[in-house]
Amino acid sequence: MPITFLSDFGTADAYVGEVKGVLASGAPGVPIIDISHAVPPGNVRTAGYILGRTWSRFPPGTVHLIVVDPGVGTDRGALACAAGGHFFVAPDNGVLTPVLGRDDARLVRLEPGPDASPTFHGRDLFGPAAARLALAGRLDAVGTPFIGQPVLLTATEPVYQGKSVIGEVIHVDRFGNIITNLTAEHVPSYAVLEVEDTVIGPLRQTFGDVPAGELLAYLGSGGTVEIAVRDGSASRRLGLGLGGQVRARLG
Amino acid sequence: MPITFLSDFGTADAYVGEVKGVLASGAPGVPIIDISHAVPPGNVRTAGYILGRTWSRFPPGTVHLIVVDPGVGTDRGALACAAGGHFFVAPDNGVLTPVLGRDDARLVRLEPGPDASPTFHGRDLFGPAAARLALAGRLDAVGTPFIGQPVLLTATEPVYQGKSVIGEVIHVDRFGNIITNLTAEHVPSYAVLEVEDTVIGPLRQTFGDVPAGELLAYLGSGGTVEIAVRDGSASRRLGLGLGGQVRARLG
Amino acid sequence: MPITFLSDFGTADAYVGEVKGVLASGAPGVPIIDISHAVPPGNVRTAGYILGRTWSRFPPGTVHLIVVDPGVGTDRGALACAAGGHFFVAPDNGVLTPVLGRDDARLVRLEPGPDASPTFHGRDLFGPAAARLALAGRLDAVGTPFIGQPVLLTATEPVYQGKSVIGEVIHVDRFGNIITNLTAEHVPSYAVLEVEDTVIGPLRQTFGDVPAGELLAYLGSGGTVEIAVRDGSASRRLGLGLGGQVRARLG
Repeated sequence: MPITFLSDFGTADAYVGEVKGVLASGAPGVPIIDISHAVPPGNVRTAGYILGRTWSRFPPGTVHLIVVDPGVGTDRGALACAAGGHFFVAPDNGVLTPVLGRDDARLVRLEPGPDASPTFHGRDLFGPAAARLALAGRLDAVGTPFIGQPVLLTATEPVYQGKSVIGEVIHVDRFGNIITNLTAEHVPSYAVLEVEDTVIGPLRQTFGDVPAGELLAYLGSGGTVEIAVRDGSASRRLGLGLGGQVRARLG
Repeated sequence: MPITFLSDFGTADAYVGEVKGVLASGAPGVPIIDISHAVPPGNVRTAGYILGRTWSRFPPGTVHLIVVDPGVGTDRGALACAAGGHFFVAPDNGVLTPVLGRDDARLVRLEPGPDASPTFHGRDLFGPAAARLALAGRLDAVGTPFIGQPVLLTATEPVYQGKSVIGEVIHVDRFGNIITNLTAEHVPSYAVLEVEDTVIGPLRQTFGDVPAGELLAYLGSGGTVEIAVRDGSASRRLGLGLGGQVRARLG
Repeated sequence: MPITFLSDFGTADAYVGEVKGVLASGAPGVPIIDISHAVPPGNVRTAGYILGRTWSRFPPGTVHLIVVDPGVGTDRGALACAAGGHFFVAPDNGVLTPVLGRDDARLVRLEPGPDASPTFHGRDLFGPAAARLALAGRLDAVGTPFIGQPVLLTATEPVYQGKSVIGEVIHVDRFGNIITNLTAEHVPSYAVLEVEDTVIGPLRQTFGDVPAGELLAYLGSGGTVEIAVRDGSASRRLGLGLGGQVRARLG
């Protein structure tokens, strides 16, 4: 099974290569699959979002290495996790939130060795643990029992206000599509989506339901409501970004 | 044989990872090779250009997955193609033009299943088809006979005007090199290349034929005439970009 | 053993894909691992820096392909090298400096074939040589004895001035961390790091030793002194980039 690799390292430095070297040496023959290295520096929330959308698409037994680690060099913990038949290696900073809520999630604590760089645990702690997990396929091969509560990111839930429900923008993608935390449950067929004074309309099926250049709302491929401009950028059109509000008017 | 993956997804979202997960699950052990995910959003022509330069370098049996799909969610078709001993999976939007002109090209039509997201066929239609093709090695394993004509991009051909032939810029690369649609046939050894009022000169062999900082024209590695500045950017120097004109004066 | 691939090709052109195709055809089944394609165009020094930090992390027998080749199309030479149990394929332009100083380094000279594009040796000379090396595991399978001296980059050494030692910035990473050429030998525990009029202080262990938002100096993961802002960008804070000066005051 492969090792996937998600980080905020960018691709212009040596860091991605150094970690891949550790993986290739520690787990010879195990494929290394890049997920993204373009997570904004230190942005645990975006990394968690990407992890949440990707991990379960991979085959069981896959090891997911996530190095978005703004707390390296502090007393934040380090984790390996088994959940859903997959393995995960990451700092204890909330990035594993998408899988830690699962009933079958089990955790061990990773401890850096004496030679680990105190500023590059991706290379000297998480990478080696991911390689060992890929070979051993057992959590106890890499860590000791984890005591306590791991850090969890608190998801913002949509809020009901009068005859509306207010959702939040959780991601804006490369195409300018706006991804919200509103689900199908929040947005019945009679609901009308709005952003400030702009009426988007009811949920559509897909882009072809509106003319090119027009706004639409639809249930996106990640399972939540999205707002897009067909052949354009909704984020630019609406001036709406991460953390912004989208309203579903229910009556 | 590997699966190559070319898209306009960028690398900052989850989309590349989701598709790779589908490939890794559907075709275990088959290497996934990134070609580019930096195609400008929806730019079928650039994707076709990159496909045309890359596919035949890979070994026969390679599956080429191309997801540049501005028409997702419309009635555009979906294709798998066998040509030149390779396989191709892509929307029916012209991106396969570089291989569809081959005599040995055969096509099947792909149909999304009932659970496919109507906005993410890369993950739910093209990716699964690429994985099945990689395992089965037969077009009929993934689709049904394709009836009709696939979409083809029309290439702009150089135009003869008086004693000149006018070519078009078809790509500008990272180094600022300007790639045209002029071939060796259009540009005999006595021809002089010009961009507006700037005389570039006759075709050279390579960069070393001019001093650093000077413009030159040469037959590029893609088989067409290019204009470059040795150790510099011709695109910036000349203010010339995609769709711009380059003239070969023949007398 | 894998082939690693480091270039200045960017990821928006066809070049990376063309080279990968050559590798996949020439060395079927050999994993191709991207190190970076975001080296600034023609920047041999940055490529050498990345190579120096990454190569030894990979398993012995790995082939490292480095195509940062501003001299393509001139009379610069082409090399394959064996050192430290690894193989390297690159232009003779100094990019191999990190390994050429080793006692066990051996070199052969690569010669382009008659059909090689004179502007794309990555695809037509270096790539094929890397693939052959991956299969053959012997230098003499790809080239002829190298006579003479390969090009070496001269490293700037820190300079002692009065009671200070002056180092140079050799890299700035994505996080804005400033990496210098000062080593632990230059900076004893009583030394105080300074950048122009800003006093950074003595060497710390890691980020957690200062409050968020504050500057610190520490011995970085590459073995030299770095300056960072905890949870921020030291490069932006100090206005300091590549080639800039960092002073260690020794008394």
